Amino acid sequence: MPALQDLYPDDFAHCYGCGRLNEHGLHVKSVWHDGECVARFHPRPEHIALPGFVYGGLIAALADCHAMATAAGATMVSSGATPGCDPTPRFVTASLHVDYLKPTPLGPELVLRARAVEVGARKVVVEMSVAAGEIETARARVVAVRAPASMFNDPR
Amino acid sequence: MPALQDLYPDDFAHCYGCGRLNEHGLHVKSVWHDGECVARFHPRPEHIALPGFVYGGLIAALADCHAMATAAGATMVSSGATPGCDPTPRFVTASLHVDYLKPTPLGPELVLRARAVEVGARKVVVEMSVAAGEIETARARVVAVRAPASMFNDPR
Repeated sequence: MPALQDLYPDDFAHCYGCGRLNEHGLHVKSVWHDGECVARFHPRPEHIALPGFVYGGLIAALADCHAMATAAGATMVSSGATPGCDPTPRFVTASLHVDYLKPTPLGPELVLRARAVEVGARKVVVEMSVAAGEIETARARVVAVRAPASMFNDPR
Repeated sequence: MPALQDLYPDDFAHCYGCGRLNEHGLHVKSVWHDGECVARFHPRPEHIALPGFVYGGLIAALADCHAMATAAGATMVSSGATPGCDPTPRFVTASLHVDYLKPTPLGPELVLRARAVEVGARKVVVEMSVAAGEIETARARVVAVRAPASMFNDPR
């Protein structure tokens, strides 16, 4: 299954977090599977808070992009479309909340699992868990809203 | 006045967000001034959500590091020390909440102004405003806790 970000229109594909056209970015890839949205990410060696531990700001950034993709996927499902196959609607972040449960060790792949807990016409609320290997180290709750047309060259 | 991060011990100076020893990092610098803590940051061209607008994940990351420095500074003031001059205590993030009020234009310097609204023995709550030029585009509320000794080679 392709990532949802692979089907963002080009003008939404420059994001530092998840844009396929941002050569310096993180390239978060969110895949819809069985009612949840999953992203897997290997932090770079420099993505540390202190030696041996992942930088919390990185986790917040991953959560941000992954939540926008989850919001898009949930919206698609609610309208009968298929996340990862059909054109993907564009959301922006209204609020981001991350609870850091424990230090995240650098080394294991990070796995972000997200679900939409509220899907409205313009607003979607996403909750997610972040794990390093088998250890859940953070949780996030993110409010996404449909991107205003004024932000795009090609509004839809 | 030096930045608070300049007086973090070396083992706390590798942070991707604010570590002076992280050559790939953002190098957030937080300066104490007249009861508040101020950081100024120029996003890189790649730090975009989409062309012309700053990536929200970057704003969350800046808020994270700036809040930890603000927590340290407020703790120092409460004990009679001088932020930016004396050794700086180390905090880690318990929770991070960012409200994105409007899109943040890429171009103007970002200015983060923070205050501690609660200073406890182990926990400090920080609130901040993020502005692009004269426009306030985000607010954050961050809970900081004293870093556990287990995270360091040189606990203090």
